[in-house]
Amino acid sequence: MAIKVHGNPLSPAAQRVLLCLAEKDIEYEFVYVDLATGQQKKEPFISINPFGQIPAFEDGDLKLFESRAITKYIAYAYADKGTPLLVEDPKKMALIQVWSEVEAQRFDAAGQKLSFEILVKPIKCWATDEALVEQLQAQLATVLDVYEKRLAQSKYLAGDNFSLADLNHVPRINNLMKTKVRALFEQRPHVWAWCADILGRPAWQKVLAGLN
Amino acid sequence: MAIKVHGNPLSPAAQRVLLCLAEKDIEYEFVYVDLATGQQKKEPFISINPFGQIPAFEDGDLKLFESRAITKYIAYAYADKGTPLLVEDPKKMALIQVWSEVEAQRFDAAGQKLSFEILVKPIKCWATDEALVEQLQAQLATVLDVYEKRLAQSKYLAGDNFSLADLNHVPRINNLMKTKVRALFEQRPHVWAWCADILGRPAWQKVLAGLN
Repeated sequence: MAIKVHGNPLSPAAQRVLLCLAEKDIEYEFVYVDLATGQQKKEPFISINPFGQIPAFEDGDLKLFESRAITKYIAYAYADKGTPLLVEDPKKMALIQVWSEVEAQRFDAAGQKLSFEILVKPIKCWATDEALVEQLQAQLATVLDVYEKRLAQSKYLAGDNFSLADLNHVPRINNLMKTKVRALFEQRPHVWAWCADILGRPAWQKVLAGLN
Repeated sequence: MAIKVHGNPLSPAAQRVLLCLAEKDIEYEFVYVDLATGQQKKEPFISINPFGQIPAFEDGDLKLFESRAITKYIAYAYADKGTPLLVEDPKKMALIQVWSEVEAQRFDAAGQKLSFEILVKPIKCWATDEALVEQLQAQLATVLDVYEKRLAQSKYLAGDNFSLADLNHVPRINNLMKTKVRALFEQRPHVWAWCADILGRPAWQKVLAGLN
């Protein structure tokens, strides 16, 4: 099979890539990377991602890493398949880029650390830093306040259609929904409706079914 | 004039946008935002960037924020003007996306905090956190080790041509060159040659001349 995803199915970054492939209805081979034995820090993995982090991706002779670069590649190279996730018009495309940057630089900057404190640390029997959790929740709330105003104006972040900017949020939101951080989403009606919409998409349900 | 850049000329994020416009040889109006009086947190600025941070950008009726989304828009919308910064081939484009993500998520994650500790804090008479500086330098060194291997294989990060992935690095590297962090670049010959190349580009020299 031409397309391979190297990762761990529990990683939100790997799930981001799987979701993008599901929206595009593209077949792939999943190559399990055993993080417990540090497989991601050794060859052959580091010849794909020299930073030694999952996911990594192959499409024939093309080798990629960084989940958001991978989803952009899939959306661009397979534009004609499945759900359109990018657009050609430069001004509409620019809005997808803006909200994709917001996801990476603002939303997930807080979301990733919150997941680590609330979801990962308890599994490892490490103590959660409650002061940091408070600070990160305040940071995420500020981001969600902007989203609430934005989503009152358009159904999705970059306009009236679901795009890569929304897609990139899904795995992190899915994780945070299992925690007390869920309240931050519930308190904002437009954000809450948007979450229900993007988490309810058949492609995400298919990814979740594949994980179980 | 159709294009407006709102920012402070000393901000590396604003400089990133100015450099992209210079590479594309595009005229623009610079709208000074007075950070000292908090202009970026008030209308009319926050109607362009609801997060209240510079830079912001207008092209006719299009309003954008996030410097890397702005440079992507300029590179894409003005593909036929000045220096080509993106390519159409999906596999070559994917490599530009990968190294652009590396810049944002890894290089500048360390670089921005280093600039704050070493350049901004002394101006404000705040104490630099030396332990944090050590930690960030180690983090940046790991990133530059990967760059050194990469730049031994290709002249620029995404291949044999200068691209948006290289461009986005320039203002931060320019700032760090004024500090002890310069040594991390000097110690790596391919990285050092790459820095000399991208900082020596006429478009960057033009931006610097405009700041003085």
